[in-house]
Amino acid sequence: MTEWYCEELTERWRQSLPVRSCLVDERSPFQHIQVFETRDWGRMLVLDGKVQCTEGDEFIYHEMLAHVPLMTHPDPRRVLVVGGGDGGTAREALRHPGVEGVTLAEIDARVIELSRLWLPDMAAGLQPDERLTLTVGDAADTIRGCEPQDVILIDSSDPEGPSEVLFSESFFQSLKRALKPDGILALQAGSPFFFRKQIEEASKLLAGMFTHVRPYLAPIPTYPGGTWCMMTASMSLDPCALTPEELGVRCRARNLDGRFYTPEVHRGSLSLPAFLRDL
Amino acid sequence: MTEWYCEELTERWRQSLPVRSCLVDERSPFQHIQVFETRDWGRMLVLDGKVQCTEGDEFIYHEMLAHVPLMTHPDPRRVLVVGGGDGGTAREALRHPGVEGVTLAEIDARVIELSRLWLPDMAAGLQPDERLTLTVGDAADTIRGCEPQDVILIDSSDPEGPSEVLFSESFFQSLKRALKPDGILALQAGSPFFFRKQIEEASKLLAGMFTHVRPYLAPIPTYPGGTWCMMTASMSLDPCALTPEELGVRCRARNLDGRFYTPEVHRGSLSLPAFLRDL
Repeated sequence: MTEWYCEELTERWRQSLPVRSCLVDERSPFQHIQVFETRDWGRMLVLDGKVQCTEGDEFIYHEMLAHVPLMTHPDPRRVLVVGGGDGGTAREALRHPGVEGVTLAEIDARVIELSRLWLPDMAAGLQPDERLTLTVGDAADTIRGCEPQDVILIDSSDPEGPSEVLFSESFFQSLKRALKPDGILALQAGSPFFFRKQIEEASKLLAGMFTHVRPYLAPIPTYPGGTWCMMTASMSLDPCALTPEELGVRCRARNLDGRFYTPEVHRGSLSLPAFLRDL
Repeated sequence: MTEWYCEELTERWRQSLPVRSCLVDERSPFQHIQVFETRDWGRMLVLDGKVQCTEGDEFIYHEMLAHVPLMTHPDPRRVLVVGGGDGGTAREALRHPGVEGVTLAEIDARVIELSRLWLPDMAAGLQPDERLTLTVGDAADTIRGCEPQDVILIDSSDPEGPSEVLFSESFFQSLKRALKPDGILALQAGSPFFFRKQIEEASKLLAGMFTHVRPYLAPIPTYPGGTWCMMTASMSLDPCALTPEELGVRCRARNLDGRFYTPEVHRGSLSLPAFLRDL
């Protein structure tokens, strides 16, 4: 008999996929952490009942969160990842050869430890690398203490629940202070179908602080509704300002060859459907 | 207590959404037809246990299946819809003011009748209109008998099960014969995550018969995995050949203002992720 793992977006949506076994099921001081061996999607990390990533489709999420802002930046050297304890976002950032330092600020040491044990492809981004600094603790402290960044990537859980604070004005202000004037940040902003209000609010807050705010979309089959919204914000950098040809030149110069990301996908992901563009 | 409607892609995927009541539950000579009142997505049509459309997101599917090929065609006059008994695709085709005739070939009269009763927004495309011809029966007969078409839209169920024949070489050949030499067809080809083999096969078959075959993607939250692949095929028309500016001129000339479709979305939907582009 097939065993199914079911994620529920409270009273709104459920999706389930077949799992072979539960590899990890523990409570850290911060959250309930589970790792499953799924039948079709490789291993799957679940935090507080929400699928964070599966080995089968994590490349989409991590490439799109990292490469859209990083390719928009002409010369990214210093990158801060907020959250992202599985390592996937850091792994993608480190693929840009000009990057000299990636700081990862994860609140939960157990996510890092368990990812290293059970999710080696993603945790490639957590391996010893002189360019990588891991900090465990409140991201606010790391953000206050770090040197100015070229790129900040907010790889948090959803804008409902514990990560709500990561979508607040004061948090965005602290990010702006940690960013160089010509830097760019990107965040995951939730489902355009289930979290439209939150996306609209984040977009308004950021638009009050930054010159260029650009939502973009990526298909993530193992997330509820299957499509996720991300967003860049910057005083000077606009991911829409680059042609696919210009992005192609950068990809080749950086030897970056995505499984999902391409210069055309970069542009396409920023082409919002009318019902979202008009938000 | 919330009642959930659950769709299962056999042993691979399940997704569920809250329903208030079941409005229709009957078996026609062809299939099991259900209509539900959902809590968040309006009414929902289900055929043989597969969600066909909900009032909440049908605009995405129908606009993308119709407008990508119709806007690619400089002067579409005659349109054939294969399947599409709910009326949504015909409704979108009829929005192009140059269209003189839409023929809809639906095998199951009950889908048409029940859509008229329960899904009035979609069935707007089935209302008396001198431009509209409804035929009920085997699509193959309609295709053989009809005059040459500018655009053919295959609005079928999935490439597994009863609609498999709609993805065969002989069916595609019959479509080619029914299409004017400068016409274009489009079809829904299934999930890029669950039906990759079928998409690859359809794409290969079409590429052996047509000069331009272009897969494109649309987010459909109520379909398994949340993203769907559609595909155009034509001897002369390439949806990638038009710039957003050129498409914008056509949209304004036709007074077409989508809730999902925009000239930028048209281009963006054709920008395939690397893992699909390389199929």
